Amino acid sequence: MPDSNRRSLTLSIDAMGGDHGPPVTVAGAEIALGRVAAHDLRFQLHGDEAAIEAELARRPKLRPVVTVHHTDKVIGGEEKAAQAVRRGKGSSLWNAIEATRSGGADAAVSGGNTGALMAISKLILRMAGGLDRPALAASWPTLRGISVLLDAGANIESDAAQLVQFAIMGEAFYCAVHAEPGQTVRVGLMNVGSEDEKGRDEVREAAAILKDGGIDLHYHGFVEGDDIAKGTVEVIVTDGFTGNVALKTGEGVARFFAAELREALTSTPLSTAGALLAKGALDRMRARLEPPGGAPLLGLNGVVVKAHGGGAAHSFADAIKIAADLAASDYAAKTAANMQRLTAALTAAEPASETIQ
Amino acid sequence: MPDSNRRSLTLSIDAMGGDHGPPVTVAGAEIALGRVAAHDLRFQLHGDEAAIEAELARRPKLRPVVTVHHTDKVIGGEEKAAQAVRRGKGSSLWNAIEATRSGGADAAVSGGNTGALMAISKLILRMAGGLDRPALAASWPTLRGISVLLDAGANIESDAAQLVQFAIMGEAFYCAVHAEPGQTVRVGLMNVGSEDEKGRDEVREAAAILKDGGIDLHYHGFVEGDDIAKGTVEVIVTDGFTGNVALKTGEGVARFFAAELREALTSTPLSTAGALLAKGALDRMRARLEPPGGAPLLGLNGVVVKAHGGGAAHSFADAIKIAADLAASDYAAKTAANMQRLTAALTAAEPASETIQ
Repeated sequence: MPDSNRRSLTLSIDAMGGDHGPPVTVAGAEIALGRVAAHDLRFQLHGDEAAIEAELARRPKLRPVVTVHHTDKVIGGEEKAAQAVRRGKGSSLWNAIEATRSGGADAAVSGGNTGALMAISKLILRMAGGLDRPALAASWPTLRGISVLLDAGANIESDAAQLVQFAIMGEAFYCAVHAEPGQTVRVGLMNVGSEDEKGRDEVREAAAILKDGGIDLHYHGFVEGDDIAKGTVEVIVTDGFTGNVALKTGEGVARFFAAELREALTSTPLSTAGALLAKGALDRMRARLEPPGGAPLLGLNGVVVKAHGGGAAHSFADAIKIAADLAASDYAAKTAANMQRLTAALTAAEPASETIQ
Repeated sequence: MPDSNRRSLTLSIDAMGGDHGPPVTVAGAEIALGRVAAHDLRFQLHGDEAAIEAELARRPKLRPVVTVHHTDKVIGGEEKAAQAVRRGKGSSLWNAIEATRSGGADAAVSGGNTGALMAISKLILRMAGGLDRPALAASWPTLRGISVLLDAGANIESDAAQLVQFAIMGEAFYCAVHAEPGQTVRVGLMNVGSEDEKGRDEVREAAAILKDGGIDLHYHGFVEGDDIAKGTVEVIVTDGFTGNVALKTGEGVARFFAAELREALTSTPLSTAGALLAKGALDRMRARLEPPGGAPLLGLNGVVVKAHGGGAAHSFADAIKIAADLAASDYAAKTAANMQRLTAALTAAEPASETIQ
């Protein structure tokens, strides 16, 4: 990246979010500081000052680029979204989001309660132009590298227009955060078969718009569940119900496989010896198979990244890196441009077509 | 199983279905003959007589319990369901299904084209009393043993009543084929959260009926994607779109993991040596993680099991064993009894409730 693109980025962190709070979130900020070399990072840490300062005291490199924003209000992990919206004002999560609107932060990161994070983010930041619903975009390791699946659970149903919007947002996100220079970023629609006539109405309608809707992206066609891990496309678009089930199913199978492998490699003296010899290779494999620890909530006027609530510091650092890359990118402009192309195409098509609404 | 339950079962096999035809289907029948000890199996093999006889010639134990039913008509793997129904009469797949209606067979097994198998089975066998739609029931290995997921793709949408029917059929199937004596068979509804108010309307409505609908089964509540591999419940109920995506996502992740493991264990001389030492344990793990090779199409007046089209002979034998166990069980009576209970409860509830239709 040329130096002219170098930016000073301020990230507002919900230091209390997630299962572990400051020991993980502050440590994660320190790791991210070392990992994001392309930009100058600064952090706002929102939460209990004493707990945060205790962590900062041991981190002299991090201290100078941090401001601490005290609050003793925290949204609980089990709190319902509606309740969190009612009583959440002034909480560490709320303040971290609010800082991206009015407090000089370029992006927010929280490992807190997903429902509360979505509801409060939507309330404070509002949807960006023309977009109906936010979408959670989860990144997965695949045979070919990394793919992004959205919506991973921000919604429970999605019509054709929303699926198309997810495609636009997901492609712009992939380009901003994961794509290598010159990489073709292909978008696939999740379905139960690859033939044109297969699947639900909204999926087939979305496919028609993605093919002919004047949008600037590489639409691949329908994909199926096993295409996620194959890496057939870089961006997989589906409704939030299916996406959430697929994501959790995949995570569950991966954990099951890992547990069985551990069991197999400690089941006999021979296999234990074998595991010892292969330890380096197996550790590299485990690292490669671990999904990045952050999923952005796309579609808002601002960058919000959900960190894995149970994740370790390096996982929280993933989320910070995604937030920084997204904030420094042309994601918002690219999404807006494609939304304009889509609106223009749909408006032009309206008199001639009854299938596109 | 007491001897009084011993039955003579005739299985009609689509010998031409799947990627390999008789070399796999006939070999699979031989393996199943050794594996199903509780019943006396006989086979009708439908397909090309010469190809089938060539395989039988090498299998003297199988030969006496087989009759060959020649046809040179085969439904192609890529043939559309509607076309298969139009021109499929007299094909090996058609004849195998027809034999369960009028040809003295107790159950049919085919590794052919799933769409064609479903359409032809439905046409020939019709839905069993009170059931709206067939469902494919896939069996998965889990941390705790085995679980069944349905619908794995026979439908693309399902309303609340259909989800409840899937629960009834799935539980009866699990009891017939997988349950140990005395095992509690729990049924879960797939959702995106475990709280009552979460998820799509049809899922919440189905939950209400399963809780209070007078059905004789152990309803656990909502489950999420990662509960599949955990084995939280024995039977997972979902619509065919979500089920198909979840199943294929899980298969894809398992294959990806296996490929990465192979890669890791051949990446260095040390890891290769380690893999050699651990080979026995790793082979046992692989066998344990392989899903059974057959998924019944439930809900019809007859037993039809879809074998994995690309599977090997032992996988085809799994499908035959499932067909035999199902045919010998009280699955049909149990399903019918629960459907009667459901109808009675819904009829009684009708004047008082508007949510149950």
